[in-house]
Amino acid sequence: MFTQAELGRSLSPARYDALIPKLRTDLLNAHFQLRHCKFPVIVIVSGADGAGKGELVHRLNEWLDPRGVGTHAFWDTSDEEKERPPYWRFWRALPARGRIGILFGSWYTEPIIRRVGHKLKRKPFEEELRQIVAFEHMLAAEGALILKLWLHLPKAAQKARLCKLERSNRIGPDDWKHFKHYDRFIKVCDHALRVTGRPDAPWHVIEATDRRHREHTAGRLLLDAITARLKAAANATPAQPAAATAPQPAAATAAPAVKSTVRRKRTVLDQVDLTQKLTNREYERQLKAAQSQLAKLAWAAREAKVSTMLVFEGWDAGGKGSAIRRVTQAMDPRLYRVVGIAAPTEEERAQHYLWRFWRHLPRAGNVLIFDRSWYGRVLVERVEGFATPEQWSRAYAEINDFEAQLAAPGNIVHKFWIHISPEEQLRRFKERQTVAYKQYKITDEDWRNREKWPVYLAAVNDMVTRCHTPAAPWTLVSGNDKKYARVQILRTLVERLEAVL
Amino acid sequence: MFTQAELGRSLSPARYDALIPKLRTDLLNAHFQLRHCKFPVIVIVSGADGAGKGELVHRLNEWLDPRGVGTHAFWDTSDEEKERPPYWRFWRALPARGRIGILFGSWYTEPIIRRVGHKLKRKPFEEELRQIVAFEHMLAAEGALILKLWLHLPKAAQKARLCKLERSNRIGPDDWKHFKHYDRFIKVCDHALRVTGRPDAPWHVIEATDRRHREHTAGRLLLDAITARLKAAANATPAQPAAATAPQPAAATAAPAVKSTVRRKRTVLDQVDLTQKLTNREYERQLKAAQSQLAKLAWAAREAKVSTMLVFEGWDAGGKGSAIRRVTQAMDPRLYRVVGIAAPTEEERAQHYLWRFWRHLPRAGNVLIFDRSWYGRVLVERVEGFATPEQWSRAYAEINDFEAQLAAPGNIVHKFWIHISPEEQLRRFKERQTVAYKQYKITDEDWRNREKWPVYLAAVNDMVTRCHTPAAPWTLVSGNDKKYARVQILRTLVERLEAVL
Repeated sequence: MFTQAELGRSLSPARYDALIPKLRTDLLNAHFQLRHCKFPVIVIVSGADGAGKGELVHRLNEWLDPRGVGTHAFWDTSDEEKERPPYWRFWRALPARGRIGILFGSWYTEPIIRRVGHKLKRKPFEEELRQIVAFEHMLAAEGALILKLWLHLPKAAQKARLCKLERSNRIGPDDWKHFKHYDRFIKVCDHALRVTGRPDAPWHVIEATDRRHREHTAGRLLLDAITARLKAAANATPAQPAAATAPQPAAATAAPAVKSTVRRKRTVLDQVDLTQKLTNREYERQLKAAQSQLAKLAWAAREAKVSTMLVFEGWDAGGKGSAIRRVTQAMDPRLYRVVGIAAPTEEERAQHYLWRFWRHLPRAGNVLIFDRSWYGRVLVERVEGFATPEQWSRAYAEINDFEAQLAAPGNIVHKFWIHISPEEQLRRFKERQTVAYKQYKITDEDWRNREKWPVYLAAVNDMVTRCHTPAAPWTLVSGNDKKYARVQILRTLVERLEAVL
Repeated sequence: MFTQAELGRSLSPARYDALIPKLRTDLLNAHFQLRHCKFPVIVIVSGADGAGKGELVHRLNEWLDPRGVGTHAFWDTSDEEKERPPYWRFWRALPARGRIGILFGSWYTEPIIRRVGHKLKRKPFEEELRQIVAFEHMLAAEGALILKLWLHLPKAAQKARLCKLERSNRIGPDDWKHFKHYDRFIKVCDHALRVTGRPDAPWHVIEATDRRHREHTAGRLLLDAITARLKAAANATPAQPAAATAPQPAAATAAPAVKSTVRRKRTVLDQVDLTQKLTNREYERQLKAAQSQLAKLAWAAREAKVSTMLVFEGWDAGGKGSAIRRVTQAMDPRLYRVVGIAAPTEEERAQHYLWRFWRHLPRAGNVLIFDRSWYGRVLVERVEGFATPEQWSRAYAEINDFEAQLAAPGNIVHKFWIHISPEEQLRRFKERQTVAYKQYKITDEDWRNREKWPVYLAAVNDMVTRCHTPAAPWTLVSGNDKKYARVQILRTLVERLEAVL
């Protein structure tokens, strides 16, 4: 893969000076068009030490509009980063739509360095690469333009460069150490690039020995990639990129969602026995018992640095809020946070739909409760047509990947769907209208959603069946009796925590 | 201060049940009005261990609209927090306008605990309290409603509570340890509350022995505080809260800004010798030398965990961008970040005007470069009337406090104003119009600003004279010759770093 980058390509100063002004102008124009045709551009700058990665990052920053570009260099991880899934730090750095993010170092750096240093066996290395492919594919599917630049230096050239850098104090602390393993480094990278170079996230190997050649080539590649995408976007219907955030239902796409559902008669929710209930005395006794166990387990989880992420979904008036409060009541407020998921903010709308959830992930040993969640993608967004069928069908796998990362380091991920009958919902809607401090909870939208019950039923069925994984299971809660539901939730939680701790 | 809270006040279950529904309804209505009448509400819940702080937090969350309230518990600090000024973690948690933020633990917790444990002498403790007063005053001045609740327990009552908590596994790890120092704790807190209880951020001591009494009292206090503010806001002109973010000039307020300036003839900028220049040869030599020194110092600063925060301000076309690039070129991209300050995002507009800068602060040992900065408050916002005279006059002190915090732990804060003559600016404007890839840099706004030169001159003069502090000095850069300016900046930086390292 790298031999093609050892042909001694170079660019004379005169030629460079002749080419650059035009290139800069074109790059800037493309950059400005980005703002209107909103998709994020992710530029990964990687390659051999001393190949001029840093210089290239400087140059790109010089050529682009500073207001529309951000550079992120990844190096040592903070403990806030260590206490969260490895990709959290990358999500933190992803560019918003309409912006260019230059990543100096990336999700490739650590796996490659560890593999070169024999700290990573073949199998887990391959697994890392698989995860990278899935991650980049997911970003690309939501419209991200991913450009991966690899600056290659022949062994001799690298040695010469490092000596030069050393003289001007510009050498990195590990550069010489890495140089010792040049051959293995090349071997590992060659493999990594082959596996991770995909149509939606291609690798471009640049011959880096000559500064002018590598800078001009990188600039051209970036320009061509953006222009090509701008053209494509101009021709394509705006639906796809828009739908990701657009609040208006795309009627056309809503239809299939409905169709796919009417067919199905029985759903997993039919298995829930809604007749179960508790007397007040039983409730009080069992609630107290479960809460006191949970209180102790929450402290133990903190000790063990086990993070717990809970998702609460359910029908309107299902009793999510009051159930969540029974859980939080049991815990010291320093141990948990509740994140209510409402409409995304401007900054959130400008990112991949999972970004807003990543930003809330708790530090080790804490409990994070999502009151509604990323499942909105396959529930309301599917039913209302805010997401295209292509988007929400893809989401099940994306969500499973996401939750697998949350659960990975021995953490707990658990999801509750609070199920009630349509009749019970009607009763509660009416009750809400009568109690002053509950009225705000009942809106016209609730009544509208109620009419879509069968459509939601199908969406819930797909969601539970496709996203019920060992690492992140769903519990269907029998919610007609709030007392029973709360105890069921608390007990499930206690069991989950006891199993892990 | 606490004796008034040992009168054995309590509330019977019957009375409680009679009062709460009304209270909840009123709280909710007040909460909803908050959304339209935008100001943040900061509720600090503190007091003795076992006084029911946690229960109260739960209760308030139950009573308020979950979508408009966020609870933040402060406990052990992450290293990302430790590597930044102590208040960074609090800025992270401040509620946005229109929202209620419940702080469980706060900027009071650590100073008080350390003072009780004799880890903090009287003097530094008083200094901490002074800083708290300034901080809360600053937030209040921008419209924040600050409610500080102190739950008090007599010694006997506390002991009883802790035993009870222990039985239900709800006791915190340090509670018993703290109880040993009850008397000193009371003494320290009594003093702290007296010093920090101000009209714009009052303390409310609540007798906490009886759960129903303390919850009802807290709820009432919150309700009364919000309603009072809502009334006041309804009567007041919208100008004040609006101005903080409004992009339209408040013509009325712009006037004084202009007047205050016309009076002044000479400014600090007259001291800048704009005739200084460098030949290309001198420039190349001195630039290389300074950059290579800076490269080495940047690594040394990282070693020493010294953070560097640089601010670049200057006339349009003053050469900020290219000067910044000469600085960054010298450094490994992993060591610095450049933050270009453009229009604030929705999330930023909903916060105090300094919030958006706090969120960018670098970790220890890194360099952060602000391309434009918080000085917009006393420059463009003052000149254009986006900020009221009351706001921008107050800003000088607020900024000095802010920068003192940035510089505090042996960090470096340095500010550059790149000065050029009006004639030179004109020449560059025209040049920009001719070079294709520079045209985007010149807009009608630049021409409009140019006409306000004298008004800006006065604003710059005030800014430099009032915010030139030993901890965060201004350097006036002679910018007519870009080469000279770049070298001057690099050398200043090298000197600053050498002095600290």
